[in-house]
Amino acid sequence: MKTAAERAGDVTDVEVVFTPSGRRATVPHGTVILDAARQVGVDLDSICAGRGICGRCQIEIGSVPGIDERPSRLSAVAETETAYRGRKPLVEGRRLACAARAHDDVVIEIPADSQVHRQVIRKRPEVDNLPIDPVVRLLYVEVEPATLDGVPGDAERLAAALAAQWGSKDLHLAPSVLRDLQPALRASGHAVTLAVRDGVSIVAVWPGFRDAVYGVAFDIGSTTVAAHLCNLMTGDVLASAGRMNPQIRFGEDLMSRVSYVMMNPEDGAARLTDAVRSAANELVGVLAAEAEVDRHEIVEVVAVGNPIMHHLFLGIDPTPLGSAPFALATASSIEVGAAEVGLNVHPAARLYTLPLIAGHVGADTTAAILSETPYRSEDVQLLVDVGTNAEIVLGNRKRLVAASSPTGPAFEGAQISAGQRAAPGAIERVRIDPDGLDVRFSVIGCEPWSDEPEFEERIGKVGVTGICGSGIIEAVAQLMLAGVVSTNGVIVDSGRSDRIVADGRTHSFILFQDDDVDIRITQNDVRAIQLAKAALYAGIRLLMDHFGVDQVDQIRLAGAFGAHIDPAHAVALGMIPDCDVDRISAAGNAAGTGAMIALLSSEARREIEEIAIGVEKIETATEPRFQEHFVDAMAIPHRTAEYPHLTKVMSLPPRTAAASGQRRRRAAT
Amino acid sequence: MKTAAERAGDVTDVEVVFTPSGRRATVPHGTVILDAARQVGVDLDSICAGRGICGRCQIEIGSVPGIDERPSRLSAVAETETAYRGRKPLVEGRRLACAARAHDDVVIEIPADSQVHRQVIRKRPEVDNLPIDPVVRLLYVEVEPATLDGVPGDAERLAAALAAQWGSKDLHLAPSVLRDLQPALRASGHAVTLAVRDGVSIVAVWPGFRDAVYGVAFDIGSTTVAAHLCNLMTGDVLASAGRMNPQIRFGEDLMSRVSYVMMNPEDGAARLTDAVRSAANELVGVLAAEAEVDRHEIVEVVAVGNPIMHHLFLGIDPTPLGSAPFALATASSIEVGAAEVGLNVHPAARLYTLPLIAGHVGADTTAAILSETPYRSEDVQLLVDVGTNAEIVLGNRKRLVAASSPTGPAFEGAQISAGQRAAPGAIERVRIDPDGLDVRFSVIGCEPWSDEPEFEERIGKVGVTGICGSGIIEAVAQLMLAGVVSTNGVIVDSGRSDRIVADGRTHSFILFQDDDVDIRITQNDVRAIQLAKAALYAGIRLLMDHFGVDQVDQIRLAGAFGAHIDPAHAVALGMIPDCDVDRISAAGNAAGTGAMIALLSSEARREIEEIAIGVEKIETATEPRFQEHFVDAMAIPHRTAEYPHLTKVMSLPPRTAAASGQRRRRAAT
Repeated sequence: MKTAAERAGDVTDVEVVFTPSGRRATVPHGTVILDAARQVGVDLDSICAGRGICGRCQIEIGSVPGIDERPSRLSAVAETETAYRGRKPLVEGRRLACAARAHDDVVIEIPADSQVHRQVIRKRPEVDNLPIDPVVRLLYVEVEPATLDGVPGDAERLAAALAAQWGSKDLHLAPSVLRDLQPALRASGHAVTLAVRDGVSIVAVWPGFRDAVYGVAFDIGSTTVAAHLCNLMTGDVLASAGRMNPQIRFGEDLMSRVSYVMMNPEDGAARLTDAVRSAANELVGVLAAEAEVDRHEIVEVVAVGNPIMHHLFLGIDPTPLGSAPFALATASSIEVGAAEVGLNVHPAARLYTLPLIAGHVGADTTAAILSETPYRSEDVQLLVDVGTNAEIVLGNRKRLVAASSPTGPAFEGAQISAGQRAAPGAIERVRIDPDGLDVRFSVIGCEPWSDEPEFEERIGKVGVTGICGSGIIEAVAQLMLAGVVSTNGVIVDSGRSDRIVADGRTHSFILFQDDDVDIRITQNDVRAIQLAKAALYAGIRLLMDHFGVDQVDQIRLAGAFGAHIDPAHAVALGMIPDCDVDRISAAGNAAGTGAMIALLSSEARREIEEIAIGVEKIETATEPRFQEHFVDAMAIPHRTAEYPHLTKVMSLPPRTAAASGQRRRRAAT
Repeated sequence: MKTAAERAGDVTDVEVVFTPSGRRATVPHGTVILDAARQVGVDLDSICAGRGICGRCQIEIGSVPGIDERPSRLSAVAETETAYRGRKPLVEGRRLACAARAHDDVVIEIPADSQVHRQVIRKRPEVDNLPIDPVVRLLYVEVEPATLDGVPGDAERLAAALAAQWGSKDLHLAPSVLRDLQPALRASGHAVTLAVRDGVSIVAVWPGFRDAVYGVAFDIGSTTVAAHLCNLMTGDVLASAGRMNPQIRFGEDLMSRVSYVMMNPEDGAARLTDAVRSAANELVGVLAAEAEVDRHEIVEVVAVGNPIMHHLFLGIDPTPLGSAPFALATASSIEVGAAEVGLNVHPAARLYTLPLIAGHVGADTTAAILSETPYRSEDVQLLVDVGTNAEIVLGNRKRLVAASSPTGPAFEGAQISAGQRAAPGAIERVRIDPDGLDVRFSVIGCEPWSDEPEFEERIGKVGVTGICGSGIIEAVAQLMLAGVVSTNGVIVDSGRSDRIVADGRTHSFILFQDDDVDIRITQNDVRAIQLAKAALYAGIRLLMDHFGVDQVDQIRLAGAFGAHIDPAHAVALGMIPDCDVDRISAAGNAAGTGAMIALLSSEARREIEEIAIGVEKIETATEPRFQEHFVDAMAIPHRTAEYPHLTKVMSLPPRTAAASGQRRRRAAT
């Protein structure tokens, strides 16, 4: 429907004001809003290039002073808009910018979800507010069919269509697209959707219109490989899954895997590489099935991991990482074909790995930095990820320093007499009454605490099998608070309880005994925890020295350890420096979140690449002060000053909310 | 050794004049000549960045008016030069530009072999004068070893060394280089040679210094796959080999292979692709063994072929090429990882394919154009490559037109009663005495003609097995000249010879009979040749119409057919238009030569990419004039005008030089 003015050919200019950008376009009466937006560079999404198919260019009529918001300022609702509303939901009052035309001066509001660079709020806190700015974009394009006398090549006709319909020139076609293009054109009446990477390469083609394409973010740990499948267009996390890293059969920890490689120069590295890649492929299958997508619709992959995992996944011999000077093959971010690392996804999919910082501080740490963004903070943040080594990052928006501290595996329950991984059956919380030395504990997989009536019934299913890292830390801290463990880490037999028993020339403290297990804290266990916590504290202290602070404003504990550890106990034991306990918190799987951010945002990639170069790495092995700090930190607690958090530790709610509820009900009966 | 002036710090400027470029550098006294050359952009080669290792930067002292050529104008011969001369030959009087310093105004002559962009003259005429300007360059670089406190990544230390020693920045590392870099650095005391592609990507690394790297050029024909292995630095062709295209088991000719693909939609294309790729890999093995190089030292591959071979080699379904509108997947040049097409060479090697022109005019034709360079010619050139289809290119520096004409396989000996491929045992040359209709012929693999005394003895080893394309053409032309075949192509039984025999309702002409074979030219054979030559001539004529000429200046006959065919007979039969017989010549394997040129010169690639876009393709199938020309060309000969070449044909030397010598000796006895 044309206006009278249009029919008469009496075309006058109108002004279109876009919010929130505030940009103004002066265009002829009747100009399509999408065209006006492009003309002044307004960030307005579109996949179908204005055909009323994709619904990405939804707009609202807004108002600014001087211009009211009468709908008549736009053309009447067009057929394509009615048709779109018939197929998909369209918020009342919204229009499609590719159909609506400016009939008068008008204010056009671009809702957040119509912007190409948009923030998406999701339910899961750890993936809140991820910027969506993926390296891959979708373009719908209609191609002229081949004729005997016309342009002979499909690729060249596609290029002509892209230039005409999208203004895109010189896009490079991936080889797999060359193979897929003809069948796609034929299957769809010559209309296809392309995935364009970095604005320069066509990496995938599908017949007809589509508005979803997927990516996978891997967090490759030495114990666990975790992965998330995301819709690259919406940022939605459609599925998450984890698998034991099958490299474990070649060695429990990182160094034993490097040793395996050194002992098997022929194919050791290749076998470790194959193992982790097969786990990754298996995860892709699990994720694709769960999200009900075809694995060949996955066009982008991001992986993070410590330097050894990173190298092995990329097929690089990690041997140099096993000894000084711990030379990395590269510290830079890498982009390779996903097929080159054996991933069975779309054949033109690319794998991006985040940059590394040093031989012990890998892409998992940079991913955590990307997730936690200490580089934007005014406060001095401490970010700690504890595994066999602890990766430590300290700093704020002005400066970041990082180190890896050789804590050993004690915090993961290894080298502890009754230690085990954090899995069902493991004691994870411990409270010891300072008077009678009575012990209460909770077990992973069993909600009630050990002194609650339901415990007996519920524990039957999981059993008590050992004690995990957080349990040991709480146990030692509680023993210290109860006076059982002395400041220099000796279990003292004060005769106060028969839980303290002689164990050769030292003593142990019995946490739990039944017919099957005998879970005790031995003198060796205390020593192992002492060594580990001293290493961690010394590393942190060294960074604080370098950074020039005596106190940190905020502490974030990343990873599984960070999720289980009780901050107050960690401070009490002297693992981490003094800090307001309220400002110590778990960062969740910061590495995995960082990988997802890099999957969904090309801007985030540039950001972390730049940040990573500026992170100052501190090498603990060559720093004499590290040894000094380490020796100082062996005592429990090692600080002589009055300890501000001890009372807090004791007053922490000892039970879960559910357990408390139970107790209240019991009290009422 | 410093001069007195240098010792005194009294540095004055001197002028260095470079020939042949004529560029002048004003530099401080004592400046290294290589540095002076770089300063003014003089094309002077170097792999070792001025360490006196590679010997690429050899120079001579020249003279221009005003500056004499006393050697004392350069510094004394340096230790590195003496050391180099001890290892490798250095022409007397030559200096290494990286060691010689300017001590006064001096003229420096850059010999052709010291230029990066150089022309190399070789013994084989078809690879004469190839420009050497490969996409891959070698750089020798010495890298700082890793230290605990230094830059942690090998790649980053390499980048720093490249920036310092070569001024090269932002070079991208191929994934395989990341894997090879550490072992190479460790094996060589941190000195490595890099292969850099297109000036932007490091594609290979080797420990220590090296000055050779290799490439392979493939010419993938439907019958034969040929390949050449070249030293990319010198342009030397180190080995050449050919193999039957194993696709033949899926169909003798192109269309039957496309049919096979259509009948086997599941895996037909994949099987054809696997077949040709396995042949290519086998050839790489043969070439590498012959040239005594490691196949992983092959870092660049070029392939040409007709559109169907091109698509199949790249793994693209050729089905659309089997029927109108004969749509290509792409007409553009393509660059993919060699590994992506299954080639077992260096993992980062790339495959480059030349552009195509139309659904029937492929990369073999553009390669022939690149080799023959009609686009540089003032004369109007006709380039003909005869196979099952004939690819025809006509034009000069102003304009090129191209077509494919459906000649059918008769010229290749197929669909001929006694026809066979050009292989030992095939009659390839025929002379028929116009008076008594006596027949003389020669056979591939047997030097003497059939009427020579040695023939009986020598033919025993090969036998007479059939007649190949050139033999049939000569036979039909000779029969026409002898009056046995009429103008409209009928074998007329004039009763002149018992070689003319009734064959059903038509007649045949017996060429040769013995106990085993009966080689005759049947009426059907004449018809097949009539159809084929009419198609070829009509295609050429159509191009001449489009180009607007009635005559061509020069005719080049490419491929195996072009090498065997006798130009005069081809003209006599009316296959090709009138042209001075001296200006009709065989082009050899122009497609293979073009592939080699593209292998050795990146400039040539840009050249043919640009030229190919401008070639006007003429579609014979939709041109009414093609049918007219075709019908006109069916007669033998079809031109009514007096035929200028008939006498020349008859006066051509009928025997080889050796046979003539034999005859002279016999005459003397």
